[in-house]
Amino acid sequence: MKAAVLGISGYTGLILLRLLTDHPHVEDIIPVSSSQYGKRISELDPGIGETTTGKCISTHGGVINLNQAGELKPDVVFACLPHLKSAELCEPFFGKSVVIDLSADFRIKNPEVFLAAYGAPVPNPGLLPKAVYGLAEWYGSAIKTADIIANPGCYPTVSLLPLLPPAKEGLIQDTCIINAISGISGAGKKVKEYLLFCERTENTGAYSPGTSHRHAHEIQQELGIVKEDVRILFTPHLAPLKRGMVATITAPLVKKVNADDIRDMFYTYYGNCLFINLKKDIPTTRDVWGSNRCDIFWQVEGNILMLFSAIDNLIKGASGQAVQNMNLRFGFPENAGLAVYNQL
Amino acid sequence: MKAAVLGISGYTGLILLRLLTDHPHVEDIIPVSSSQYGKRISELDPGIGETTTGKCISTHGGVINLNQAGELKPDVVFACLPHLKSAELCEPFFGKSVVIDLSADFRIKNPEVFLAAYGAPVPNPGLLPKAVYGLAEWYGSAIKTADIIANPGCYPTVSLLPLLPPAKEGLIQDTCIINAISGISGAGKKVKEYLLFCERTENTGAYSPGTSHRHAHEIQQELGIVKEDVRILFTPHLAPLKRGMVATITAPLVKKVNADDIRDMFYTYYGNCLFINLKKDIPTTRDVWGSNRCDIFWQVEGNILMLFSAIDNLIKGASGQAVQNMNLRFGFPENAGLAVYNQL
Amino acid sequence: MKAAVLGISGYTGLILLRLLTDHPHVEDIIPVSSSQYGKRISELDPGIGETTTGKCISTHGGVINLNQAGELKPDVVFACLPHLKSAELCEPFFGKSVVIDLSADFRIKNPEVFLAAYGAPVPNPGLLPKAVYGLAEWYGSAIKTADIIANPGCYPTVSLLPLLPPAKEGLIQDTCIINAISGISGAGKKVKEYLLFCERTENTGAYSPGTSHRHAHEIQQELGIVKEDVRILFTPHLAPLKRGMVATITAPLVKKVNADDIRDMFYTYYGNCLFINLKKDIPTTRDVWGSNRCDIFWQVEGNILMLFSAIDNLIKGASGQAVQNMNLRFGFPENAGLAVYNQL
Amino acid sequence: MKAAVLGISGYTGLILLRLLTDHPHVEDIIPVSSSQYGKRISELDPGIGETTTGKCISTHGGVINLNQAGELKPDVVFACLPHLKSAELCEPFFGKSVVIDLSADFRIKNPEVFLAAYGAPVPNPGLLPKAVYGLAEWYGSAIKTADIIANPGCYPTVSLLPLLPPAKEGLIQDTCIINAISGISGAGKKVKEYLLFCERTENTGAYSPGTSHRHAHEIQQELGIVKEDVRILFTPHLAPLKRGMVATITAPLVKKVNADDIRDMFYTYYGNCLFINLKKDIPTTRDVWGSNRCDIFWQVEGNILMLFSAIDNLIKGASGQAVQNMNLRFGFPENAGLAVYNQL
Repeated sequence: MKAAVLGISGYTGLILLRLLTDHPHVEDIIPVSSSQYGKRISELDPGIGETTTGKCISTHGGVINLNQAGELKPDVVFACLPHLKSAELCEPFFGKSVVIDLSADFRIKNPEVFLAAYGAPVPNPGLLPKAVYGLAEWYGSAIKTADIIANPGCYPTVSLLPLLPPAKEGLIQDTCIINAISGISGAGKKVKEYLLFCERTENTGAYSPGTSHRHAHEIQQELGIVKEDVRILFTPHLAPLKRGMVATITAPLVKKVNADDIRDMFYTYYGNCLFINLKKDIPTTRDVWGSNRCDIFWQVEGNILMLFSAIDNLIKGASGQAVQNMNLRFGFPENAGLAVYNQL
Repeated sequence: MKAAVLGISGYTGLILLRLLTDHPHVEDIIPVSSSQYGKRISELDPGIGETTTGKCISTHGGVINLNQAGELKPDVVFACLPHLKSAELCEPFFGKSVVIDLSADFRIKNPEVFLAAYGAPVPNPGLLPKAVYGLAEWYGSAIKTADIIANPGCYPTVSLLPLLPPAKEGLIQDTCIINAISGISGAGKKVKEYLLFCERTENTGAYSPGTSHRHAHEIQQELGIVKEDVRILFTPHLAPLKRGMVATITAPLVKKVNADDIRDMFYTYYGNCLFINLKKDIPTTRDVWGSNRCDIFWQVEGNILMLFSAIDNLIKGASGQAVQNMNLRFGFPENAGLAVYNQL
Repeated sequence: MKAAVLGISGYTGLILLRLLTDHPHVEDIIPVSSSQYGKRISELDPGIGETTTGKCISTHGGVINLNQAGELKPDVVFACLPHLKSAELCEPFFGKSVVIDLSADFRIKNPEVFLAAYGAPVPNPGLLPKAVYGLAEWYGSAIKTADIIANPGCYPTVSLLPLLPPAKEGLIQDTCIINAISGISGAGKKVKEYLLFCERTENTGAYSPGTSHRHAHEIQQELGIVKEDVRILFTPHLAPLKRGMVATITAPLVKKVNADDIRDMFYTYYGNCLFINLKKDIPTTRDVWGSNRCDIFWQVEGNILMLFSAIDNLIKGASGQAVQNMNLRFGFPENAGLAVYNQL
Repeated sequence: MKAAVLGISGYTGLILLRLLTDHPHVEDIIPVSSSQYGKRISELDPGIGETTTGKCISTHGGVINLNQAGELKPDVVFACLPHLKSAELCEPFFGKSVVIDLSADFRIKNPEVFLAAYGAPVPNPGLLPKAVYGLAEWYGSAIKTADIIANPGCYPTVSLLPLLPPAKEGLIQDTCIINAISGISGAGKKVKEYLLFCERTENTGAYSPGTSHRHAHEIQQELGIVKEDVRILFTPHLAPLKRGMVATITAPLVKKVNADDIRDMFYTYYGNCLFINLKKDIPTTRDVWGSNRCDIFWQVEGNILMLFSAIDNLIKGASGQAVQNMNLRFGFPENAGLAVYNQL
């Protein structure tokens, strides 16, 4: 099994290299980058030690370029590339490799919504119908045969996993208020002033509320598929941690239910899911740091259903879910190469 | 002018010592504590230097006890004591000194609500009617003559300042969702496992949602005074910073308004307030770190008014507002001894 | 293969549970604690998910006590217990199981030194000669047959790994100045005021310099074994991070050498060591966060050899090295269950 | 009194605006910047509130340019500009205003040393003899009449204040090992990848050891003035905090002394210094966060004198010492506008 990782300057690509190194079914990991071409991995990432032995992160002596990667005919390609560039750079692999795209290029089904969210037309409308939205717990059977998997955003993952069951059951209505808090790595490794240590430490607050965050569109799309008339009002926040994401959601109930009803519902949907942890109290990000889990808790307050969820934005919110999707697609155990426990 | 600070083991008492040191109208600061009795201030707080000269933090050679403090007849007493003990320990000062109580003992007017929130009867129901709620921008004229001032909680301050104007104008209705994020000092200096550095760093999440946080009752009480039928659903969160607090609030509108209407309304209420900063974008905690400001921003999303606010929980949310209340009560300039700018 | 972990309230025990879960040769993990007796692991550690399937962390339904653990006849016992209690609580296992003790009870060979460092007599002087100091890269052959392994302290590990080769080669002399910086977890999970988040964030500084830190004695003992006349002056520092430890060492050279000589020397000693990473520049703690590596760099400044090293204090400095020692003792691959790369 | 601040994009300029706002003898603060020309201060720094009243940070409606500033004939100019540009941009003010330069342009007396440290010739060798090194506690009498004050670097301040007394007394010899730890703001507000939050949190380590850090030359120069034959080996470290700096220094003693001798010596030198705090134990950065203090402690270990010091790198290490120098130069109380206590 050969796996290529396109784009290894950012956090998602570097984490994929780590996850794949420990994956029992991946023999060959191919790091691909134009900007890092020719470098040894340890040069660009000192966390990968110089003297690393055992399974080699690359059998190719270092980072290769797209053409070379195409010739190697990887079984699976993970695209860790910027929105609006990913679909194009993956061209050489469509139809030959399974492409798991961590960008937004194949996530939004409605071209007008994509335009509104990303300020540009859908990059590859022709292939769009073939892409399966890679929310593993919901599209598992489609993922098993998909050749293009649109790996979900982190905010959509942490929001949709708790929201979809009550929405599908028709339990909730009107406007759901989603307040989410993200660690700083959610913004990637962009070299911007507002992401400097001194600008973010001892600092927290909201940004891009309402429809101004791109992920609001993605959440709305997926929620609308299971229950058309539920709307969301989404407000993300940044807090001074590296990794971790929580959502606090209030959803108006259509009828009186109690917490036990909700528990039964969640167990029906998620009781067999390896990576959904139905908790007895509110999850926090540390519980899931480094794991591929989404932890969920709920509480009924009068006619409002409160939902609480937590993920590691770089694992279940990105690279880990990408590996989970690979596992589903290739028939590996769903947790191969993935941790169910956190890093303390 | 003599000011006594009762309780100097916690953060609010230690900050009061600092604020009063720089206050132009306070000549004598009296630190009072039974557990720290007899110590020099620099022993219990190395941030107050051994060699500090200029105005002496205590003219009394160190920390004194309650009896001694009573004999010194302070003009004002700041009580930085635990809930349910504060009212009792302040007994020697009632009727003699102005008492500014930073605990909850005089905040809740309804004894049943107090019992529900604090699990015990109101400590001093006889004096309760004399206590004025010390939200400085709203009760300024009553504060001017009050002899007992119930200094507000931090969550109530950051929630009420943005919510009260639209509530009083009758613009909002139904259930307002308040999501707030607090730095860790909001929990005080309690020596508990969940407050250890290793338990809180790289960790964020909600706690005590609905009516389970005591401050929910305080917010509800004050909101109810200006508009009876508005309810709140309050969820606090902890994030890994020391100081700082933001609220993100969604309030259902009773009629169509636009952002300019809201701006005009806020300027009507707060245009002359030294410590309310009406912003052009979303405030974050760093903007107000160390200042006595509350920064406010708003946005209209369909039929929902979004409100965003930020304070330093230890300043405007505690010790700073206490000094502001002293200033109002004694006729000093409102910003005497208080910063309008943040610590970078 | 059955592995018992004695003491699971602290970080080292909880991390051992994780490392052993992924270990290919451990079938049965036995969590042992008197204070946590009877609890499910997920109750005391929410990072271990409720719904965890696959290999079960305990086949015993939860935490058991010492007597029960003795009856299960574990092949290996990891003691994550306080100094001065560990040797005693391990009594039931000596002679039956391999005991890997993460406390200091078997580290110091000279009873007077132990008394000076720990303020009490050596707990079990009779067994002391049987204990092997578990610095894996230096005592590998003795560890292979040891039944008691004294797992080194974190500061000794990060100091000795760079210092021992030049000391053994006779290259250094006089007093080596060791300045080390530790993350807060180095102090364990003690519920003390000075370990609170608000006391440690935005705070760094030295503590316990000279011979006042217990680890100074341990470093001096091991250094003296390879070169008797080299002294150390050790100063630890705390910095606001959870995990990670670096040492910056200056060692007076006995003769003129250049950086290439030092490189050759280090490759001779460590060229085949899986977990020693000889770097081309100064390592930082993030490079090794979550890995079992020790990264080392050196620089010659006139007649002084500068050494720089970094470890994860909870992995190579504690639980990881304990697993490495188990691997050596039982003939497993040295890196079984251990990461060579960091968590980003 | 008119004070101009040249350069307000970085942290030192922004902090000077704050310190000067509260200074009792400064009536007019003039912010000067070409890149920020025309902006209101609150636009570029939301910590300065929109509605700030009382003393106005600028009487000029916003940021002005160099020419305009020259016409305003400020009494004092604080230059918060990059090395190698500062001396040139200050040209319009030499001979007219007192110039306090926070860059290195006037710090190094020996042109060859400057070239080695900064890779370029001394910018204005003609004026160099007129510049006084602004280490306030050592050059106070020269500062009183200086028209150019070279404000010291942060590492030199934290290193020299403890080292100069024993050096001047002839107590120490040979090579002093200086290990210092700095908060991230020591690197300024540069938008570089290595200064991103995600790159610096949970990360610590040394950088630029030996003579590779520019401040090593500055420390060596000043130490050489009081005792020619003492050398330093300087190693800075970064730790994940915003503000704060400590030095841990080992200095070989020329003769046997005890801790009391050292205490007496330090009291002789610093007993009357407002901003030197001679402590009874090791200082940490939090003790001095936001204050203009340097806290010092010492310990004798055999023939080695250990020195420990702490400052806020942005206050005593930069903007605060600059104000202290202004106070000395203009005959104001030394602590006018400066805090002796920390921000908790």
